[in-house]
Amino acid sequence: MESQLPQERSKLRTKDLPQVLVMKPPPLLTLFEDKFISTKFQLLKAWESTLPLDQFLTTYAGSVRAVLCSGASPVTPHIIRLLPSVQFVVTASAGINHIDLNECRRLGIAVANAAAVFSDDAADAAVGLLIDVLRKISVADRFVRRGLWPAMGDYPFGSKVIISLFVCFTQESWDCRTWKHRSAVAKRLEAFGCTVLYNSRKPKPWVPYPFYSNVHELACGSDVLVVCCGLTAETRHMINREVMVALGKQGIIVNVARGAIIDEKEMVVCLVHGEIGGAALDVFENEPDVPKQLLQLDNVVLTPHRAVFTPEGFMAACDLVVANLEAFFEDKPLLSPLIDE
Amino acid sequence: MESQLPQERSKLRTKDLPQVLVMKPPPLLTLFEDKFISTKFQLLKAWESTLPLDQFLTTYAGSVRAVLCSGASPVTPHIIRLLPSVQFVVTASAGINHIDLNECRRLGIAVANAAAVFSDDAADAAVGLLIDVLRKISVADRFVRRGLWPAMGDYPFGSKVIISLFVCFTQESWDCRTWKHRSAVAKRLEAFGCTVLYNSRKPKPWVPYPFYSNVHELACGSDVLVVCCGLTAETRHMINREVMVALGKQGIIVNVARGAIIDEKEMVVCLVHGEIGGAALDVFENEPDVPKQLLQLDNVVLTPHRAVFTPEGFMAACDLVVANLEAFFEDKPLLSPLIDE
Repeated sequence: MESQLPQERSKLRTKDLPQVLVMKPPPLLTLFEDKFISTKFQLLKAWESTLPLDQFLTTYAGSVRAVLCSGASPVTPHIIRLLPSVQFVVTASAGINHIDLNECRRLGIAVANAAAVFSDDAADAAVGLLIDVLRKISVADRFVRRGLWPAMGDYPFGSKVIISLFVCFTQESWDCRTWKHRSAVAKRLEAFGCTVLYNSRKPKPWVPYPFYSNVHELACGSDVLVVCCGLTAETRHMINREVMVALGKQGIIVNVARGAIIDEKEMVVCLVHGEIGGAALDVFENEPDVPKQLLQLDNVVLTPHRAVFTPEGFMAACDLVVANLEAFFEDKPLLSPLIDE
Repeated sequence: MESQLPQERSKLRTKDLPQVLVMKPPPLLTLFEDKFISTKFQLLKAWESTLPLDQFLTTYAGSVRAVLCSGASPVTPHIIRLLPSVQFVVTASAGINHIDLNECRRLGIAVANAAAVFSDDAADAAVGLLIDVLRKISVADRFVRRGLWPAMGDYPFGSKVIISLFVCFTQESWDCRTWKHRSAVAKRLEAFGCTVLYNSRKPKPWVPYPFYSNVHELACGSDVLVVCCGLTAETRHMINREVMVALGKQGIIVNVARGAIIDEKEMVVCLVHGEIGGAALDVFENEPDVPKQLLQLDNVVLTPHRAVFTPEGFMAACDLVVANLEAFFEDKPLLSPLIDE
């Protein structure tokens, strides 16, 4: 024992730590691996094994109590079935659509996400996207870069003030945490003189804005729809053709949540035909594919799912994931549990 | 008299109204001529006369007490000399750089601008431009439109959160009204968690932010410089190389005021060499010419002097100009006088 190097001793100790299964590395882990070194757990990296995933999971089925998942490695009913000891699923993302929440709920598996640390970045991006599409910043930037200002003189695009009605909405199950997202957007937009309304499954007593139980009714009275809820079975295609037509010809949609919350095919039709006024989209139904027709439109702003991609946000998300895992293994309350409401 | 048509009677009456000289029509007048019909004054349109301007002005020198000017028809010492009866100069713009303020001050000529009605639009645009350059929205939009997302996978551009230090500044003479501009920007940015500092010729007791008497010192402690003051002899090239270097490699400049407040040549050097982090520019020194080197940069956002161009803002500016003129001819206080402080 005396001859062991400190490094080897530390390896020995690490071996005794409880294991957190990671099927594929989330981008955060690739970027900031050092941040995942903990004295409370160790990562069990399925992708480093030569075993097929199912066999790998079966091998560790008895010991794995926690899973760190991501969009690339979803927690499906099949995965849950292979891991009967799992009690906790954590994701480094704000989104939770890669986790089968019903199955987790049914089996009493706790779930935590990282929406809380991304809420300011997501809100900054949502407001930036909204102003961009309303005031035509990206399209004006293209106009200037193409040398059209001296050539064409007066800028040919109209623009519009930030309008007084605005919607911040939700409909999620199991995701009270994304309320921070929404209130961060609302707080910013109030400073622009916008009126905020919201939709949710049920009214939130702590939210100071008028509640609409029906998305269609909400769209009728709104100029802008900011989509910042989780994608679930309930919210899939919640923004359908009817809602978009209700939003109207001047209406603007901002989506910093998940593409599939909007019926994208119908949205493209509405944008092309002028049935809605414009859209600022950070997310799409089949990323990285963006509907070709959108690429030609001047009433849309398109960004590649980067609303929450800031170095600061990523580092905070690492810290939150690690803190959630340490809390779980120490039997302490989770820092950002999804709560069923 | 009995045989006169109402139209002719109205013409007769109009003839008796005091005249407001307009040398060239400001864009507002071209767009919304109806709004300038008043029972208190009539417009005297120099551009409709076949006389050369100087001769036209000499002809009306005795009767013209008010001038409606614009960037296209500046009020120079020469013009003022030709119009010895002028007591009031009004502009439909937020900017006042086309009016010789020293000469007006010396002769006791009142001046009014329309900054007040544009302040919300300008602030919306300033914040939108800032988020755009910080979070790289326009460059991300170009990336998606070029089809690079599926081709290149991970988006190659870093992005950055809205940062905690921010500057809202001034230095103007004769322009307390533009304070509404600045406070509208500051109010919005506070909602994003930004700290606001400001520079001015002297501290404004009613402004709740820390005051810096020196722009260079202000830039040393700031991440973002939002330029929203009037262009005067004092503010021309106020943002010089030294200030930009003090702002630093991560520093961002937003300009929604006038191009010449920044030493544009030096700014281009700083942007190309990475001596500042980026810029979001709605205004340039020699519009519509934009320095060619800027057109290739991904750390700038360029818009064609449209920060305040919204239909709503334009109509409010018409109303304000007319109200100022009516107040002047009725010996009532002006609605938006420039005040020397």
